[in-house]
Amino acid sequence: MLENPRSDRVKHVRALHARSARKRHGQYLVEGPQGVREAVRYAPDDIRDIYATTETMERYPDIFEDAAEARLWVHQASPDVISAMSGDAQGVIAVLHRKDRTLADVDLSSARNVAVLCCVRDPGNAGTVIRAADAAGADLVILSDESVDIFNPKVVRSTAGSMFHLPVISGVAVEEIAAGLRTVGIQIFAATGSGAYDLDDLLDSVGPTRNGAVADKSTPDAAAPTAWFFGNEAQGLSQVELSLADYSVRVPLRGRAESLNVATAATVCLYATSRAQR
Amino acid sequence: MLENPRSDRVKHVRALHARSARKRHGQYLVEGPQGVREAVRYAPDDIRDIYATTETMERYPDIFEDAAEARLWVHQASPDVISAMSGDAQGVIAVLHRKDRTLADVDLSSARNVAVLCCVRDPGNAGTVIRAADAAGADLVILSDESVDIFNPKVVRSTAGSMFHLPVISGVAVEEIAAGLRTVGIQIFAATGSGAYDLDDLLDSVGPTRNGAVADKSTPDAAAPTAWFFGNEAQGLSQVELSLADYSVRVPLRGRAESLNVATAATVCLYATSRAQR
Repeated sequence: MLENPRSDRVKHVRALHARSARKRHGQYLVEGPQGVREAVRYAPDDIRDIYATTETMERYPDIFEDAAEARLWVHQASPDVISAMSGDAQGVIAVLHRKDRTLADVDLSSARNVAVLCCVRDPGNAGTVIRAADAAGADLVILSDESVDIFNPKVVRSTAGSMFHLPVISGVAVEEIAAGLRTVGIQIFAATGSGAYDLDDLLDSVGPTRNGAVADKSTPDAAAPTAWFFGNEAQGLSQVELSLADYSVRVPLRGRAESLNVATAATVCLYATSRAQR
Repeated sequence: MLENPRSDRVKHVRALHARSARKRHGQYLVEGPQGVREAVRYAPDDIRDIYATTETMERYPDIFEDAAEARLWVHQASPDVISAMSGDAQGVIAVLHRKDRTLADVDLSSARNVAVLCCVRDPGNAGTVIRAADAAGADLVILSDESVDIFNPKVVRSTAGSMFHLPVISGVAVEEIAAGLRTVGIQIFAATGSGAYDLDDLLDSVGPTRNGAVADKSTPDAAAPTAWFFGNEAQGLSQVELSLADYSVRVPLRGRAESLNVATAATVCLYATSRAQR
């Protein structure tokens, strides 16, 4: 039982809230029962240590049964120790080895619905998009090298475990992302308020094809393999990012709202693609 | 020019961050250029005072031209004064009279797409749903009496001005909300992971009707006037809330995600209804 909140071990875990320490040690944190549960289920090989209070172990037995089955060691720790490690642990925290995957590590050719975060800086937004991408059944999420650090604890928390459900790649330049997608024939849609195509029109033109009629060739095929580019919270997509896309698409704004939160826009777009591709 | 960050006026404004002071004074805050701009445009009569730094007035002339046209007085204030009023003002803050509207104040009979927040407690979630409802062209947002205070500055900020674009009502018991909707013939859909109907199936069954064929009567009509019930972040909809709905509907989860963030779910549902009703 770990009881000293001032131990070197506690200091090490706490330090992983900082990007520099995560990079130096090649590790990151997963805080709270939901995130740790999904990490244990879907990424057990990445887990280095799990710390939990006795109360948390009794409250969520499924997590710790799965951990035992995966032969993962769980350190029992006092509530003081867990609180010293993180203010957001809710009684359980895991330290994981970070795996910095590149585009070459995933099978792009089989991907049909991809989310690309271009310079998305807010941790909550990035995590929420990853969670929405998971729910929409997207195959892959890519964060450009200008986006927030995927291993930021707030990003990890906001994904609610979804970052362990589908491949998430980060640190790639947008030009390289676009080139990789193009090589395997995935069209790129830039999500932007000033888009040339209305998302509703794209969805309308999918219908006839599925019923056997001729597709409307005047609009891009929403059912074809698609990667969505989503832009920065304040500036949107840059000229460079827009120029890398095949088509620019706008989410219909029916009320008086002048723009959408990036996570809201991503939800609408990724669900539209998965519906078109059913 | 206001220059004393310790004046009673500054203290009064700052105090409006607390719910009790907002209630006592019948006032609330709108922080930042985007929120103040929309308040000036769409709710000028509610505005009591606007405070801004000289730099902000020069940077966003449109806001202050609109304010002058609406005969609103703008207090110039030093950056120290604005910072003392709020850490989130970005140079401009407005004090508004709160109008606690009830169901009787809106024309429910003409509403076709309504969002109802049942016990939604997180300010960011509530604000994001209001913004998404605005974008989707919803007619009305209702917050149950167990939900977060709509005049909480973080809710106001998260709406990005959308709370001035469509009627937002708060503090009504869910039973009363349901009764009001039922009186005017608006069907209630409970958004829940265990819903009896799949949202995609509902959308599929809208198509034939629009083409003149007979509607599929085995599923509820997604194009009919609809109010969506969205539940608490942790617990979802309660048994009482579920029992008040006509149908329970699930957003399709195509990946491994076990649930959706309430704002993400609301986005998918409200956009689905607005698409079905086009």
